[in-house]
Amino acid sequence: MRNVWEYFSTRNIIFGNGSIQKIDKLLKRYNAKNVFIITDQGIVQAGILEKLLKHLKFHDYQFVIYDQATPEPPISSVLEAYSFSKNELNPDVIIGLGGGSSIDLAKVVALLIEYGGHPRDYFEEGNVPGPITPLIAIPTTAGTGSEVTSVAVVNDTENNLKVGISDNYLRPAVALLDPELTIGLPPYVTACAGIDALSHAIESYTALEYKHINASGDILFQGSFPITDALALKAIELIRENLVLAVHQGNNLKALENMLAGSLLAGMAFSNAGNALAHALAYPIGGKVKSPHGEITGLLLPYVMRYNYSVSRDKMAKITQIFSPHNEKPEAIYAAADAVEELLQDINLPTKLSSLGIKEEDLEEIASKTVHIERLARNNPKTPRKENLVELLQKAY
Amino acid sequence: MRNVWEYFSTRNIIFGNGSIQKIDKLLKRYNAKNVFIITDQGIVQAGILEKLLKHLKFHDYQFVIYDQATPEPPISSVLEAYSFSKNELNPDVIIGLGGGSSIDLAKVVALLIEYGGHPRDYFEEGNVPGPITPLIAIPTTAGTGSEVTSVAVVNDTENNLKVGISDNYLRPAVALLDPELTIGLPPYVTACAGIDALSHAIESYTALEYKHINASGDILFQGSFPITDALALKAIELIRENLVLAVHQGNNLKALENMLAGSLLAGMAFSNAGNALAHALAYPIGGKVKSPHGEITGLLLPYVMRYNYSVSRDKMAKITQIFSPHNEKPEAIYAAADAVEELLQDINLPTKLSSLGIKEEDLEEIASKTVHIERLARNNPKTPRKENLVELLQKAY
Repeated sequence: MRNVWEYFSTRNIIFGNGSIQKIDKLLKRYNAKNVFIITDQGIVQAGILEKLLKHLKFHDYQFVIYDQATPEPPISSVLEAYSFSKNELNPDVIIGLGGGSSIDLAKVVALLIEYGGHPRDYFEEGNVPGPITPLIAIPTTAGTGSEVTSVAVVNDTENNLKVGISDNYLRPAVALLDPELTIGLPPYVTACAGIDALSHAIESYTALEYKHINASGDILFQGSFPITDALALKAIELIRENLVLAVHQGNNLKALENMLAGSLLAGMAFSNAGNALAHALAYPIGGKVKSPHGEITGLLLPYVMRYNYSVSRDKMAKITQIFSPHNEKPEAIYAAADAVEELLQDINLPTKLSSLGIKEEDLEEIASKTVHIERLARNNPKTPRKENLVELLQKAY
Repeated sequence: MRNVWEYFSTRNIIFGNGSIQKIDKLLKRYNAKNVFIITDQGIVQAGILEKLLKHLKFHDYQFVIYDQATPEPPISSVLEAYSFSKNELNPDVIIGLGGGSSIDLAKVVALLIEYGGHPRDYFEEGNVPGPITPLIAIPTTAGTGSEVTSVAVVNDTENNLKVGISDNYLRPAVALLDPELTIGLPPYVTACAGIDALSHAIESYTALEYKHINASGDILFQGSFPITDALALKAIELIRENLVLAVHQGNNLKALENMLAGSLLAGMAFSNAGNALAHALAYPIGGKVKSPHGEITGLLLPYVMRYNYSVSRDKMAKITQIFSPHNEKPEAIYAAADAVEELLQDINLPTKLSSLGIKEEDLEEIASKTVHIERLARNNPKTPRKENLVELLQKAY
């Protein structure tokens, strides 16, 4: 039995409409003069980068921009951004502006700027030697929670491998969240990002309690404990009440604000408690199809909830209460999963693996790869064998 | 309207039975060799100090001990501990071990060690120039939450003034919470500490939303926002389910563990959202009677809740749900306050100001002093005039 949990977080979290104008105050805290901005073309074209630059120019910062971030950044992109920053200026602070990919890329670049080497040197847990160059993360989608998490996903295209570099030192120094930057995204992007945040919230809320995690020594994903329970449950509530609005009313600022808060809280929760089976299954499935990560985890979520509910009755009942507060019948626990499935339909996301292009003959292989993703699988409230997963996948097919 | 909130917290939070043995690992993070321990006689006599020293001796740290902390530490005690540390060793890290008073004292000493001067130099908000000497706070009661908060209460006995020095730089670097250290306290101490934690949780949960706080610029108590709501609500649940058990079964480790987590989460919440009217009223009342702080805030809490309920219906309904989950009647909102009053009786704390020794003719003066405690009064969901407070106090008399 594990006795101790330790809570980690981003040191400064600033949130609110118009908070982008606090950037000067934040850079001053780090005595920054030279700033390296990592972002993507979508952000440039939407005029969001310009909103940031306006403040940097007004306060006379030196800056250079790498605006070629792509989803699940390949190693080549990391190396390109890294050598660009080395040649152009010696940055005191890095700003990651964009979705999870820009922020993830910024994390790995901040790691290389501080310690040199190659991204592959850090694939193994525990290889990050200490604090990275201070990183200010400014998310423009409500999804990954990357602005507060310890994980950066990169794509080792040479070895056909998606890898999460994970270390508490990778957490950004500052998370600056301005809901106004998230206005006007395509509904499908909002849906995939939002359902990913809900997966983080539900998987960390129902994660095995920290005492019962079967691992020794320091681990990053520690199972659920009171702080993560508090944050995850509030995240479920915020996302449940605002995701459909945010998808269908892309300019509803109140809904966008609550979604950004929800994904933040979910990030704080899952980066300590850990995700579980829906995320473990999503790795091998993500290797087979091109769907966005959130579409996959969201699709799996109700099936995993139904698989887990018999050992997580109290927590499932609380989730049900959030989804349908007046449901008092005994089947209410099971109804949590049905409610998530209805939500998927409401925001036009698929609910069957077959519609992603997965083939029935893939299911066995997906199941056996999943049981070996130990840091996620051991976090699940039920311990799945391969046969259980095949059955679950068949229901989801 | 305020647009932005910023969340502050203690950087490292470690929690669990036996976690005191992590002290070596924590001291290493700060490259510490010389440690200054601040504690009190009760902790020495209960053998708790010895548990800490065992680990320090085993790992060959240099340390000196100041063991004369007293409740609401007088300035003379701060100066005594400060000059003691200066003469005996140059500490790299300070450990505050004990109730809120030992930790509060340690905060002010850590401030003086870093910046010199006199405690009175820092009474005014904004006077703390930067980070204090790293402080590891090890609480032995579940109450103040001082291990994560930005406040230290000291007693300026010369000027007959209790002052809270408040600054985000006063937050300890590390909160180390070992529930086993809280075993065997007298029931009255557990009751006063626990009800204080509940007051923090309920007052910060029902605090005015951050957007509507009537203040400009950076403020310490920012009103409620999603992170504080999440933490405060979970704290209410943990305390509601465990306080009576902890008071009546002083060795019930599971209840003590949940109480320590509850007071931690309440501290994380109120040190960002702020407390409100029960705490504002407690200052002038505390100047008149010798009752512990928690006894006063606890007594006032149901009266303040009844005063506030008409503008905080949703949040009061959620509190009621925690206290009596099956109560579905419309009067459920009002029942939150009744439930807190029953809890006070259950843990043998007074419910009337007269039983504290307050005189009826004091009520007017208490009311007018309270309306001037702006940083707490403006945080209350209803804006009280003096007459409202006199009426509230008469009900509580």
